[in-house]
Amino acid sequence: MNYFIGIDGGGTNCRARLEDANGELLSTAQSGAANIMRDLPAAISSILDACEKAIANADKPIALNQVHVSAGLAGANIPSAREALQRWKHPFAELNVISDLHAACIGAHGGNDGAVIVCGTGSSGTSYSKGQFADIGGHGFMVGDMASGAWLGLHAVQHTLVCLDGLKPVDALALAVCEKLGVDDAVSIVTEVADYQSKHYASIAPAMVELLQINEPVTTALFEKGAAYLNSIAGRLLTNNSGGLVLIGGLSAVYQPMLERPIQNRIVQAQLRPEQGAIAHIKHQLVKEVS
Amino acid sequence: MNYFIGIDGGGTNCRARLEDANGELLSTAQSGAANIMRDLPAAISSILDACEKAIANADKPIALNQVHVSAGLAGANIPSAREALQRWKHPFAELNVISDLHAACIGAHGGNDGAVIVCGTGSSGTSYSKGQFADIGGHGFMVGDMASGAWLGLHAVQHTLVCLDGLKPVDALALAVCEKLGVDDAVSIVTEVADYQSKHYASIAPAMVELLQINEPVTTALFEKGAAYLNSIAGRLLTNNSGGLVLIGGLSAVYQPMLERPIQNRIVQAQLRPEQGAIAHIKHQLVKEVS
Repeated sequence: MNYFIGIDGGGTNCRARLEDANGELLSTAQSGAANIMRDLPAAISSILDACEKAIANADKPIALNQVHVSAGLAGANIPSAREALQRWKHPFAELNVISDLHAACIGAHGGNDGAVIVCGTGSSGTSYSKGQFADIGGHGFMVGDMASGAWLGLHAVQHTLVCLDGLKPVDALALAVCEKLGVDDAVSIVTEVADYQSKHYASIAPAMVELLQINEPVTTALFEKGAAYLNSIAGRLLTNNSGGLVLIGGLSAVYQPMLERPIQNRIVQAQLRPEQGAIAHIKHQLVKEVS
Repeated sequence: MNYFIGIDGGGTNCRARLEDANGELLSTAQSGAANIMRDLPAAISSILDACEKAIANADKPIALNQVHVSAGLAGANIPSAREALQRWKHPFAELNVISDLHAACIGAHGGNDGAVIVCGTGSSGTSYSKGQFADIGGHGFMVGDMASGAWLGLHAVQHTLVCLDGLKPVDALALAVCEKLGVDDAVSIVTEVADYQSKHYASIAPAMVELLQINEPVTTALFEKGAAYLNSIAGRLLTNNSGGLVLIGGLSAVYQPMLERPIQNRIVQAQLRPEQGAIAHIKHQLVKEVS
């Protein structure tokens, strides 16, 4: 008997979905971060952990070597990271690795043509058409990930330091950053953010969403710049693609009303989860091998 | 017999100047990086190395415990870093620690009122008036250091990735970045810059200066944004300060013609080197103690 586990592994956690060969859901499970570019050993540990938990949560005894695992993983768009993972002597019947963005896109459109934009801690987009993916963005903080939570938070901190230097008046955004960081002078801010990673900067974004809702000018200008970037990504992803656009990630709902009307008209709801997209991908591969 | 060593210690190297009590130059020396915020043990090693070399370069035998050392050091504006250095059981007669920016300002204006702006790998400014310093910027890459070489280089890389994603046409700046990095696709760029620090991004700036000279539009817009920041710093530094403005650092000469006319009219040449400024500071302290 064959079983399938679909995995959606990102910078924060790793979700697993166990199905039988007929596509019946047997169980789900969750574990830690699984970004193979940032930390391969941790990602491997999270993948194994999620699979073992999913099997433990199922109602019947299943061995790891009965399971075809298809993992959509952050960092799998980087060839060197994917190759490093593929050297892992995994205990599964099979391990299929694709990018988390591609798994999300297959799931979102049920394997049909379409595009997804992810905007949360990071930002990226992909378009699937005629069997080919075309990615945009996803280059990571700080050279990429425009419009993302990390990008918003970094710009908020930069603005706050300019205000505290007396170059601009201290405004509501600067006050919100000081409150979030628990400090109120430039030296303390610099010391506080010295070891900040993208997720730390992104943790400032929720306070910025509140300021956007009351039209705070600097915050609004930042979101408008972010929306312009997402508009340009979306426009490019939807060119020569007859499918819809699915928005994913914590900030997508915030940006959605700020997108241009022709883009908004293409937005659809996701059909399936990324884990299901990953399973669809491996099943498609198996069908191709058999036929 | 007392001797004085003035030190100018930054993120790249550490310069020492040995003088006798009459202010006669006995020797100079140079060693490695001395940023006490970024790497205290390396900074201590560089300070000691520069002092020992300066003494070895002098024509007469001098012991370390005869020397009053006054060090203008990068990172000394952060209280926790300065306190950590002050716990060092140094072998000198005395160790006086000030920020590299303050030493430069004292040297530039011979101890009189005035301001300095440093724009090289990083950016910062200070104003000295009525015995008080007021700093602006200097918050470090990437939350601060606007207009600096690191800031220019990072924005050039971000722009290049946007171009390679097909969101903008590949232009002269994108080509220059690809040439500098020795790669020509987005994944290779992301892999190449994964461990970049400020000095690596700043190494892209010279190619950008060449593009500025032929008015390449995106490069020119970046330098104009940088110049606007330096204008706002300068305007604030020179408010309530009757002295001149000295520009320091590799990019200052590039920005100088882009500054506003009233700012340009205040620019003067530095009178003394930062190492001399550091010596002037410790001598002023000694005079205060005696009187």
